[in-house]
Amino acid sequence: MADNTPTCMSSETILASTVAEPFMQELKTEVSSLDQAPKLVGFLANVDPAAKMYAEWTGKTSMEAGFQFELRQLDKEDLEEKILEANTDPNVHGIMIYWPVFGTSQDTYLQQTVAKEKDVEGLSHIYISNMYHNIRFLDDAKTLKSILPCTPLAMVKILEHLGVYNKVLAYGNRLYGKTVCIVNRSEVVGRPLAALLANDGATVYSVDITGIQKFTRGAGIRLRKHEVEDVSSTLKEVVPLCDVVITGVPSDNYKFPTELLRDGAVCINFSSAKNFDAVAVKEKAAIYIPSIGKVTQAMLLRNLLRLRENQKTMSASK
Amino acid sequence: MADNTPTCMSSETILASTVAEPFMQELKTEVSSLDQAPKLVGFLANVDPAAKMYAEWTGKTSMEAGFQFELRQLDKEDLEEKILEANTDPNVHGIMIYWPVFGTSQDTYLQQTVAKEKDVEGLSHIYISNMYHNIRFLDDAKTLKSILPCTPLAMVKILEHLGVYNKVLAYGNRLYGKTVCIVNRSEVVGRPLAALLANDGATVYSVDITGIQKFTRGAGIRLRKHEVEDVSSTLKEVVPLCDVVITGVPSDNYKFPTELLRDGAVCINFSSAKNFDAVAVKEKAAIYIPSIGKVTQAMLLRNLLRLRENQKTMSASK
Repeated sequence: MADNTPTCMSSETILASTVAEPFMQELKTEVSSLDQAPKLVGFLANVDPAAKMYAEWTGKTSMEAGFQFELRQLDKEDLEEKILEANTDPNVHGIMIYWPVFGTSQDTYLQQTVAKEKDVEGLSHIYISNMYHNIRFLDDAKTLKSILPCTPLAMVKILEHLGVYNKVLAYGNRLYGKTVCIVNRSEVVGRPLAALLANDGATVYSVDITGIQKFTRGAGIRLRKHEVEDVSSTLKEVVPLCDVVITGVPSDNYKFPTELLRDGAVCINFSSAKNFDAVAVKEKAAIYIPSIGKVTQAMLLRNLLRLRENQKTMSASK
Repeated sequence: MADNTPTCMSSETILASTVAEPFMQELKTEVSSLDQAPKLVGFLANVDPAAKMYAEWTGKTSMEAGFQFELRQLDKEDLEEKILEANTDPNVHGIMIYWPVFGTSQDTYLQQTVAKEKDVEGLSHIYISNMYHNIRFLDDAKTLKSILPCTPLAMVKILEHLGVYNKVLAYGNRLYGKTVCIVNRSEVVGRPLAALLANDGATVYSVDITGIQKFTRGAGIRLRKHEVEDVSSTLKEVVPLCDVVITGVPSDNYKFPTELLRDGAVCINFSSAKNFDAVAVKEKAAIYIPSIGKVTQAMLLRNLLRLRENQKTMSASK
């Protein structure tokens, strides 16, 4: 007799460390082949103990993979001058800053002060702009790679790991047919991520307090890039359509309405706050990733290696 | 018999047009000496009638001074691509955008999309950074002038016109001994302005909702620049010390507490809202400037001429 018991519906929680592991191995191999371990300098100018913990964690991860790491703690008023010094110091190969510093638009100014040649976070205007326009190199000769912002890049690697990116499809088209909801439209993560996934073929609903926008791949020729439109849909209409829901709301009070999820959705939270109720989300989601920090750290280091290659290419061409 | 009647204490209201007039004359003379009138393109991507009026006003001022002006009205989603086109169009010499577009940090992104070679507003990161560090040129050979953000520049010209800049003192030291209060610490005007005036020798109290900071000229050697410290003083303690009070609060509800002003203060409002009560301010202020728009417009065009010179220098060196 056939077994008529329905297959057990189960939800799997995947830790960022699992996704990060192969990247960490790859980084170790690459670094060990270099004459000198690239050096990352982290600037910590706030007194938030969580930021300090995160900074120490970057240090640990960097060392584990074989990189040099130096944490520089300083007063926020000295930060700009110290960034400028590090920009021109040949012994510093990568720079990152622990945010927030001032917590105002002055932080955006400081972000742009980091030389693009050393910007492991990938937040320089040119990197964000290239990402929006799907431009992969800094120069026409294609000798210098453009860096991707590390959190959006981490998300892409996670979606690849989970098989959301369909490897049967052509590169650049591997999210075709997928629908994604991203709750957060910051300039640093949410909006770049929406554009990145749309460029790869997904339909992306980008949600923030001002409303919902729909990102799709544009048909432009000169600039291969996404298109954006404001939509009047509500979360209630949009979420049930989504294969993937990604949240990044930096507030302990925010919880995503998991009752709207379709059965079998993939749920990923990149906020340091827990945007999904851990019990409720598992009643609907096939896969739940509660945080992505370890993958982001691996991507920071991956960017550092790319920057180091660019630096060598530039020195060689002088 | 001596006339013992005290001199009548009177307050003078000075219009921006009065300050702008000699600059407009100078611009006309400079433009008429050129082979071709430089062309300014203004991008208007919002539907605010006030922005449209302001845009038409720029057009009128540009034409009056002999420049070419073209207003391009478009959807906000097309703005980035159209900026990128104008960046590389040899027939466009200057670009400005009517803000706000999205009203979020996406506007900062768009701002940085304007090529620095055409940025008449002077908001490119390199211009703001050079201003903070008192760097006047873009290159070591000093052939390319760094542009100043146009609203802070307009404020300096107004203070020069009013004699607040003391011409007896050496250039770069002409605000020495002056105390200034600036209510607004935005990245676009308030903070650059505080730094600019501090670099010229003033003690500047920069006020915003997060508190009061004191900007003074730093003693740095490598980077000649201002120093900043948080102060615990209140407006009540600070304002009576100030020779000049500058306001830029973009809200109709905000009124500066004029009762705190010292007698004979100079009061200047750069917000489009009226931050001073027009009657109350005149009971204390020696000079009151209710708005600065016409001077800002003249500075935009002045920046356009400087950029045109830079463009010619760059073409010649190719």
